[in-house]
Amino acid sequence: MPGVDPKSYVSFDAKVRQAKAAERGKFQFLFLPDGPSQMVDIDNEAPNFNLDVMLTLAAIARETSRIGLIATGSTTFSEPYNLARQFKALDIMSHGRAGWNAVTSSGEDVAANYGQRIPSSADRYGRADEMVRLVQALWGSWGQDAWVHDQATGQFAKGDDVVPINLGGKYVASRGPLYIPPSEQGQPVVVHAGGSPNAHALAGRYASVAIGASFTIEDARAQRAAFRAGAERAGRDPDEIKYFPGLMTTIAKDRRTALDRRIAMTGRTFPQRTAYLQQMLGVRLDPARLDDPISPDQLAAARPSPHDPRSAHALKIARQGWSLRDVLAHGVIDYHPVIAGPAVEAADHMQEWFEAEAADGFWISPDIYEDGVDAFVDGVVPILQERGLFHTDYESATLRGHLGAPAQYGPDPRVMD
Amino acid sequence: MPGVDPKSYVSFDAKVRQAKAAERGKFQFLFLPDGPSQMVDIDNEAPNFNLDVMLTLAAIARETSRIGLIATGSTTFSEPYNLARQFKALDIMSHGRAGWNAVTSSGEDVAANYGQRIPSSADRYGRADEMVRLVQALWGSWGQDAWVHDQATGQFAKGDDVVPINLGGKYVASRGPLYIPPSEQGQPVVVHAGGSPNAHALAGRYASVAIGASFTIEDARAQRAAFRAGAERAGRDPDEIKYFPGLMTTIAKDRRTALDRRIAMTGRTFPQRTAYLQQMLGVRLDPARLDDPISPDQLAAARPSPHDPRSAHALKIARQGWSLRDVLAHGVIDYHPVIAGPAVEAADHMQEWFEAEAADGFWISPDIYEDGVDAFVDGVVPILQERGLFHTDYESATLRGHLGAPAQYGPDPRVMD
Ligand SMILES: Cc1cc2nc3c(=O)[nH]c(=O)nc-3n(C[C@H](O)[C@H](O)[C@H](O)COP(=O)(O)O)c2cc1C
Ligand SMILES: Cc1cc2nc3c(=O)[nH]c(=O)nc-3n(C[C@H](O)[C@H](O)[C@H](O)COP(=O)(O)O)c2cc1C
Repeated sequence: MPGVDPKSYVSFDAKVRQAKAAERGKFQFLFLPDGPSQMVDIDNEAPNFNLDVMLTLAAIARETSRIGLIATGSTTFSEPYNLARQFKALDIMSHGRAGWNAVTSSGEDVAANYGQRIPSSADRYGRADEMVRLVQALWGSWGQDAWVHDQATGQFAKGDDVVPINLGGKYVASRGPLYIPPSEQGQPVVVHAGGSPNAHALAGRYASVAIGASFTIEDARAQRAAFRAGAERAGRDPDEIKYFPGLMTTIAKDRRTALDRRIAMTGRTFPQRTAYLQQMLGVRLDPARLDDPISPDQLAAARPSPHDPRSAHALKIARQGWSLRDVLAHGVIDYHPVIAGPAVEAADHMQEWFEAEAADGFWISPDIYEDGVDAFVDGVVPILQERGLFHTDYESATLRGHLGAPAQYGPDPRVMD
Repeated sequence: MPGVDPKSYVSFDAKVRQAKAAERGKFQFLFLPDGPSQMVDIDNEAPNFNLDVMLTLAAIARETSRIGLIATGSTTFSEPYNLARQFKALDIMSHGRAGWNAVTSSGEDVAANYGQRIPSSADRYGRADEMVRLVQALWGSWGQDAWVHDQATGQFAKGDDVVPINLGGKYVASRGPLYIPPSEQGQPVVVHAGGSPNAHALAGRYASVAIGASFTIEDARAQRAAFRAGAERAGRDPDEIKYFPGLMTTIAKDRRTALDRRIAMTGRTFPQRTAYLQQMLGVRLDPARLDDPISPDQLAAARPSPHDPRSAHALKIARQGWSLRDVLAHGVIDYHPVIAGPAVEAADHMQEWFEAEAADGFWISPDIYEDGVDAFVDGVVPILQERGLFHTDYESATLRGHLGAPAQYGPDPRVMD
């Protein structure tokens, strides 16, 4: 896009700048997805993910002070001891702001990077369950009050309270202990991102946050209810798990300016995307005629595809008379609902979903080209604050505090029963 | 120790402060060992290793600009794709200053943290060889000139030059590619630390740096020659591998002050260490009488143990008439030769070893309590500079440049033959 540093893909400075903008906006946390793999058209697009999520958050941890820091770590393709150590070290480094998005990884492209194939869902979630328990046990293996560091007596720690865990199951095992004392929040918060029944069960047992993808209020309500039910089945209070559906934003003074920004950013991919939109609407679309509106005949013939939950919305936008290019610029085939327009539209969307009990909050993906985060912070946040829907400052210094998640150190005793 | 922050074990601020002091002294690199495990007497001592070597170096990368950053990563207990990605990301983050100390890990205490037992030496070094080749192949899988990021045409990268590697052997496999372009030095430098014939062979094939432990000039010369021979056998110029034996220092205005500092730091462990010294010297020593010199009868009867290369030096110190406590304070049973005394003694030691071709440089471990690094930088470095033995400023901005290591991107074609 014009005016943007074309090398920002490798710029840790850029990540830190965006994180500071989010902290200025009092966001409770950053959430970094991870493959690790990249299914992008590298000729035309930068890869989606960070070079490395942990190093990115390490840089951000040192240069921010309040915002929570959640990274994705695969339960299938990570060594539990390495993962446990790195997340708890990040928790120490950030003074209690770390979270682990524990996902099983589901793409064959990811598995191939590990010289493997994707295991069955039963094996992935079986291992995920063992992983979370083992990692939490390692986190708690340095007893909460073991670190005395008493200069008068010279005692460093109570050796009897820093002890091996000797846990092993069908998939993973470790002796421990992990030589890291508790952080300001004890240990990292567990997060999950997924939508299958297995995901609801895993998140129900361990997660304080579930990140979701839903395109309608009805779907989001159903997902939120499914995670809450998962928590209840595991013996927890359903309020202990917060559901955050995604929302992508391009905030600008008006719809036209926002659409033009999105065309400048992603327009190169529109010819390919036309084929996908054609399937969603069930009519033939011509990638050579991006500037024409979809014709009345085509609109009359269009039928939203039952296989894609975004189809009805895409048809609604098409019927407003936009050109094919503008329909695509609305983000009708993006990963989450898209708001491209003035700040108040994003605020209205969030208020409506929140009041309908479809969301406890949102995972916002502002377009991150230079000032995308700032546009959200300066435009949408003040409206939410005026409406009494969003805090005006951090009430806590830890991620656990930001989320209102109960204290926990080591495994949750309710779940281990 | 009095006056020291007893919580510095978890302080990333302290690590960054020490790194800045080393950079002020124009050190070519930091070298962080790693278990990962901790065999310490936690009641009395802080664990030896960093909470997490990669996060520590990430913090340091952002807050320094010239010093090289070498972290230890196990070839036995790491996933190759995860390791490759994290080191190359660190290389980007530090603008070409990263190095990987590739070690096989040899302790059962480490293996137990991974729910395993230590494999045979053949299996460890077999896997290590595959690991280094695979990791270097991943590092080179984003072609050196593939990243065009051309704002005029909109092309991001040459897709044909960012391609899978599809490498697999007996131990590890990965498809790739790794979506990280070259750093300012291309890719991280490979380092090894060990002393066995297998270590000489592995380092000979891949390493630009070998870190060693030797207590005498003769032993250091032999080790250095063994690494150089390993490089020659692999078809490389022996000057491509630099040998850096360890040296531990407590620099103070005189010997007495240095010994007192070491007693304050580690004196609590002396009663246990007495038993070890007893074995080294072959005489009975009384841990209750630390303040008495070793008696003339005992000194006459003492025989240096042939099983510990430090024994002759320990006996030499004991014969100088020091108390048992002071003998231990000289560091006679530490991991490397110890200089406890004025700066000129350290400079003399280094000059003697260097001129005897026993070292290309040194891995300095100053005692790191608050001002240990500064004492070395302010005391020893100027003497070495005056003698024309050490540079007065960095000549390069990358680790590869600091070492004079030849350019390399992807695997070394000579070794792959
Ligand atoms: C909002 C959202 C974000 C996700 N982020 C990630 C991610 O960062 N990394 C990943 O491997 N999978 C991610 N997933 C995928 C899920 O973890 C899960 O693998 C996927 O939904 C398939 O479900 P299953 O694993 O239960 O079969 C995400 C899913 C959703 C809905
Ligand atoms: C100076 C030095 C530093 C070492 N640092 C590490 C280290 O940080 N981590 C590690 O696992 N092993 C380390 N080692 C151990 C060696 O990698 C190696 O495992 C050990 O010398 C045993 O030899 P072998 O593995 O060939 O049997 C170090 C060895 C030396 C001499």
